[in-house]
Amino acid sequence: MPYSIVRAGHAELLVRDLALSRRFYEDILGFVVTEESEGRLFLRGVEERHHHSLVLTESDVPMLGHLAFRVAEDDDLDAMASYFQTLGCHVHFIEDGEEPGQGRALRVQDPFGFPLEFYAEMSPAECLLQKYHLHKGAGVRRLDHFNCFVSDLASCEAMWREGLGFRVTEYVETDEEPRVKKAVWLQRKGNVHDIALMEGRGPRLHHIGFWMDDIGSIIRTCDILGGAEMHEHIERGPGRHGISNAFFLYLRDPDGHRIELYTSDYLTVDPDHRPIRWSATDPRRQTLWGHQTPESWWRDGTVVMDWERNVPVELCGTTDARAAGYIK
Amino acid sequence: MPYSIVRAGHAELLVRDLALSRRFYEDILGFVVTEESEGRLFLRGVEERHHHSLVLTESDVPMLGHLAFRVAEDDDLDAMASYFQTLGCHVHFIEDGEEPGQGRALRVQDPFGFPLEFYAEMSPAECLLQKYHLHKGAGVRRLDHFNCFVSDLASCEAMWREGLGFRVTEYVETDEEPRVKKAVWLQRKGNVHDIALMEGRGPRLHHIGFWMDDIGSIIRTCDILGGAEMHEHIERGPGRHGISNAFFLYLRDPDGHRIELYTSDYLTVDPDHRPIRWSATDPRRQTLWGHQTPESWWRDGTVVMDWERNVPVELCGTTDARAAGYIK
Amino acid sequence: MPYSIVRAGHAELLVRDLALSRRFYEDILGFVVTEESEGRLFLRGVEERHHHSLVLTESDVPMLGHLAFRVAEDDDLDAMASYFQTLGCHVHFIEDGEEPGQGRALRVQDPFGFPLEFYAEMSPAECLLQKYHLHKGAGVRRLDHFNCFVSDLASCEAMWREGLGFRVTEYVETDEEPRVKKAVWLQRKGNVHDIALMEGRGPRLHHIGFWMDDIGSIIRTCDILGGAEMHEHIERGPGRHGISNAFFLYLRDPDGHRIELYTSDYLTVDPDHRPIRWSATDPRRQTLWGHQTPESWWRDGTVVMDWERNVPVELCGTTDARAAGYIK
Amino acid sequence: MPYSIVRAGHAELLVRDLALSRRFYEDILGFVVTEESEGRLFLRGVEERHHHSLVLTESDVPMLGHLAFRVAEDDDLDAMASYFQTLGCHVHFIEDGEEPGQGRALRVQDPFGFPLEFYAEMSPAECLLQKYHLHKGAGVRRLDHFNCFVSDLASCEAMWREGLGFRVTEYVETDEEPRVKKAVWLQRKGNVHDIALMEGRGPRLHHIGFWMDDIGSIIRTCDILGGAEMHEHIERGPGRHGISNAFFLYLRDPDGHRIELYTSDYLTVDPDHRPIRWSATDPRRQTLWGHQTPESWWRDGTVVMDWERNVPVELCGTTDARAAGYIK
Repeated sequence: MPYSIVRAGHAELLVRDLALSRRFYEDILGFVVTEESEGRLFLRGVEERHHHSLVLTESDVPMLGHLAFRVAEDDDLDAMASYFQTLGCHVHFIEDGEEPGQGRALRVQDPFGFPLEFYAEMSPAECLLQKYHLHKGAGVRRLDHFNCFVSDLASCEAMWREGLGFRVTEYVETDEEPRVKKAVWLQRKGNVHDIALMEGRGPRLHHIGFWMDDIGSIIRTCDILGGAEMHEHIERGPGRHGISNAFFLYLRDPDGHRIELYTSDYLTVDPDHRPIRWSATDPRRQTLWGHQTPESWWRDGTVVMDWERNVPVELCGTTDARAAGYIK
Repeated sequence: MPYSIVRAGHAELLVRDLALSRRFYEDILGFVVTEESEGRLFLRGVEERHHHSLVLTESDVPMLGHLAFRVAEDDDLDAMASYFQTLGCHVHFIEDGEEPGQGRALRVQDPFGFPLEFYAEMSPAECLLQKYHLHKGAGVRRLDHFNCFVSDLASCEAMWREGLGFRVTEYVETDEEPRVKKAVWLQRKGNVHDIALMEGRGPRLHHIGFWMDDIGSIIRTCDILGGAEMHEHIERGPGRHGISNAFFLYLRDPDGHRIELYTSDYLTVDPDHRPIRWSATDPRRQTLWGHQTPESWWRDGTVVMDWERNVPVELCGTTDARAAGYIK
Repeated sequence: MPYSIVRAGHAELLVRDLALSRRFYEDILGFVVTEESEGRLFLRGVEERHHHSLVLTESDVPMLGHLAFRVAEDDDLDAMASYFQTLGCHVHFIEDGEEPGQGRALRVQDPFGFPLEFYAEMSPAECLLQKYHLHKGAGVRRLDHFNCFVSDLASCEAMWREGLGFRVTEYVETDEEPRVKKAVWLQRKGNVHDIALMEGRGPRLHHIGFWMDDIGSIIRTCDILGGAEMHEHIERGPGRHGISNAFFLYLRDPDGHRIELYTSDYLTVDPDHRPIRWSATDPRRQTLWGHQTPESWWRDGTVVMDWERNVPVELCGTTDARAAGYIK
Repeated sequence: MPYSIVRAGHAELLVRDLALSRRFYEDILGFVVTEESEGRLFLRGVEERHHHSLVLTESDVPMLGHLAFRVAEDDDLDAMASYFQTLGCHVHFIEDGEEPGQGRALRVQDPFGFPLEFYAEMSPAECLLQKYHLHKGAGVRRLDHFNCFVSDLASCEAMWREGLGFRVTEYVETDEEPRVKKAVWLQRKGNVHDIALMEGRGPRLHHIGFWMDDIGSIIRTCDILGGAEMHEHIERGPGRHGISNAFFLYLRDPDGHRIELYTSDYLTVDPDHRPIRWSATDPRRQTLWGHQTPESWWRDGTVVMDWERNVPVELCGTTDARAAGYIK
């Protein structure tokens, strides 16, 4: 592979009320504001050393602006542009600073409709990890991963694995022959995932996952939301995933974008690390504790932006989680 | 009041397979076996300094054997016998040692059908609190409270408050006039409750609550149950109750008896401590995080033994949790 | 006993710089300000339902203003006044409201020099326990206990036990005959202590202990102090006491007054609860983990106010912790 | 670089009483025994998927047998052999299976005297991560890092950085010109370190660090050791390092080998990740909470084996931690 993706880098969410979203992300989740420009907020977790891992952009229509990955070197961007062109995608570059804090970046609407960005450089920002007295709310540490609904899972997995060099750590599969994959977790940075793909009506973002320091911080987030009578933001959890072993909590932000607070997964750096297979009928894959997943979690997702037209990409595939065998 | 109840003391559960129950209570919950006699197991939590807080008795029919309360002095028992006689109850005394480890005790089937026991003395047992290397599983610390379904809540509350000297800490009430109480929490030992009463088809035991050291121990219990593929024992939680502020987990034992692991409530020793009122329609009373309560939690309970006939007391009242307004 | 003490109620600390102390107690420890008057601050923990558990009073000389205990009924105060008069103490009453938020109160300089206050009534304040979004810093929950240096331990213990009705839960004793008690823990509210007495140069306050929800909150307090470069406020811990089994952290406030954050002790309501004896040479009494106690912890204490003269009471006894056998 | 080291792989400790050591590592730390052969025990943490991360070998003289690193491919071993030969080291290969469970491996006494091993393959073993019911004691998850005393820090760092491709994440340096490095943390797997080097009398192993799931598990380990009256195994902590941000606990095994339980550091995968500099006089580098480090921690280390002669390598450099400026 002529290029090297380092990790999931940042995401941009379009939100309808920036002040309202700011309260959610800054006061409740504990993000730090690096920069505020007209209609946009650049946020980072307390561990992060760069300008942003989350961008909130005010917009009439809530959607995913883009998902961005950090690559090792600027040259990688050109090689990746060629790769996406072989897939028939239109690519373009934005200049250093066009997205505040970020160097030159490649932008592409991938064959599955996702607005992706790749960049090698981002300006440094102060790491507040050890300034514990400044941590607020959940004290989110750093971006961990993206999770997406895609209608053609097999092809999309092939792009991320073979084309972009991600490695599979876990997957869900039907038991009947021919076995069909229903979801797959792929990583670059050495834990369970930088991106997960789930079969469903796509292209849609299922959630953005942020790393937390420990289980106690996640419990405290529930209490803070409960105390503030904002419990309706809690969609699912806390619980322990079978897949990834993570301790998790799923929240819905004021626009319904889904955020996962995530901790306690495992190391996957070994080259012979073997993917774990889960049967699509095993309830422990969802939570090791056997909890039922609320229907909204299977059903809802965030539409993604068409970069040329600034409107959501049209969906295809099925949303019927029951048909997909997820809900009985 | 001519007598003084100290605290909830112990309970006896009738179980169908003592070996199976032992694995659940000893290996998973971490109870310590004080004594084993034919068909009976006497258990205590790691903090407890007396012979037992839980008795498991093998039986063809699973039910509640009895609920027992510790009183300050042996003389209290005679005064309490008189009180129950004024209520028209038949009382009898068992001698020192008749229940292993226990002194002279008063037994009564209360007017609501519950088999109650009162005792002043129990033989000491080693406290294993600081022998952390011997703790197993959840490491249950001590008995905290009982929770019961009663068909006539107002009268039953009156007995516990006025007759037996318990103090109300929290209650659930309808909003329409005339307001009707739906549940009440009553205490003697200085935290939220030694006994809670919920309107429903009774007499039935809803659950026995055991004190845990911290939230981490409760999460670990979920993981242990999940790891052992015993997740079906988890009925509800973990979560944070609005009522009592407790962090909780509800389990069902092999016979379906419900056990609560409970921690993080608050101190109630002040004489002017004012009961907290919750509206029966406020979802935060159930969990501060807004989680839905599973229907089984509202519906299921353990029948209680008729001491004279060794069979379950017949039920009255309604089990219809929907009718009672608990479930929409 | 013709009166009933309920629990340790509140303390008053004289501090040199009220603004500086406020930052420590409000921002770092998370106390809530109920009332601010000229030169005084009335604070409570997030669980507390009354006006104050800690009073900070600006003064040129840092010392303990008074230690206060809540009694069950106003009539108890008169009976207690008589008791202290039999001990030869001068007593006086302050009127309802003379100490803001507090009802009529008995004040006495006890025979050992401590300025004690007893009161039955205090005006209610909002309990913020479930307003988790408002908790700050350590989120201190409530007052738990006082710990004092006294020069004549045997007599002082006798006053608290026999005169005031406290019950001993644990004590430290020399091994050689005749055995001599070195420290004793006494309770009214049903956990390990409301007051502890340690032999030493007195009368001095060793520390005020506040109840914390869990170990995680105590660790977070260390991180917050470390992050703020205020680590010099940490004197000892975190650790696990052998005595009381508590998980603890000792801090020194800006005037050197010692505060303990304390959690995870045990229930002591049983009338037959037997005191635990620790040998004065057993290192596990201090911490179960064998950690050494810093010399300052044995040596330093807060002088106490002479209520008539507004100056510190003169000390007697020895400060020599080595002589007392505490430090080798 | 013509080869790629993946991570710290395993270590071999020579111990005098294998049964005694087994109790420490298996019952207290929670290691899982993969294989037991005459005089040797092959252990792994509950998260680990390979045959061993720790080998205990019975021996009259306690020392470090070897430190091993996993490389990406078998071919890497030949390239590394050449590299060490250019350094003037004698290298040899052991065959697949010569160390049980391990493929072909390169062994070398590095120029600083350390017995190093490199291998690409190890046979799989069951991962017990989600079998929470089988976890024991501390439930150690996985090997994290090695920490060594070296007498010539600058040269040794150069070998690991330039020769072996490790990246520096943090370092300690004197303030006076010319500034001198005193310690350095180097990583391959994407967190703070796979190996740390500290100036001192070497070659000696300072400690082996194992990853823990959370702070609660580390506290529980202290309680377990305290409960079992094995508190003398606790040398330092628990606390929060400034360097690495890790929450730590240092234990001494029955032979005095030092084990660190370690969690809560941070991600370092970014290619532009900048090393953090700490002044050698900043007490917060050692613990963010300002705790003093016990002298034994600065002084003691494990001697390392000379592979040809089976005796400890002779030491050079100074052990005088005071002279080195670590202790005042």
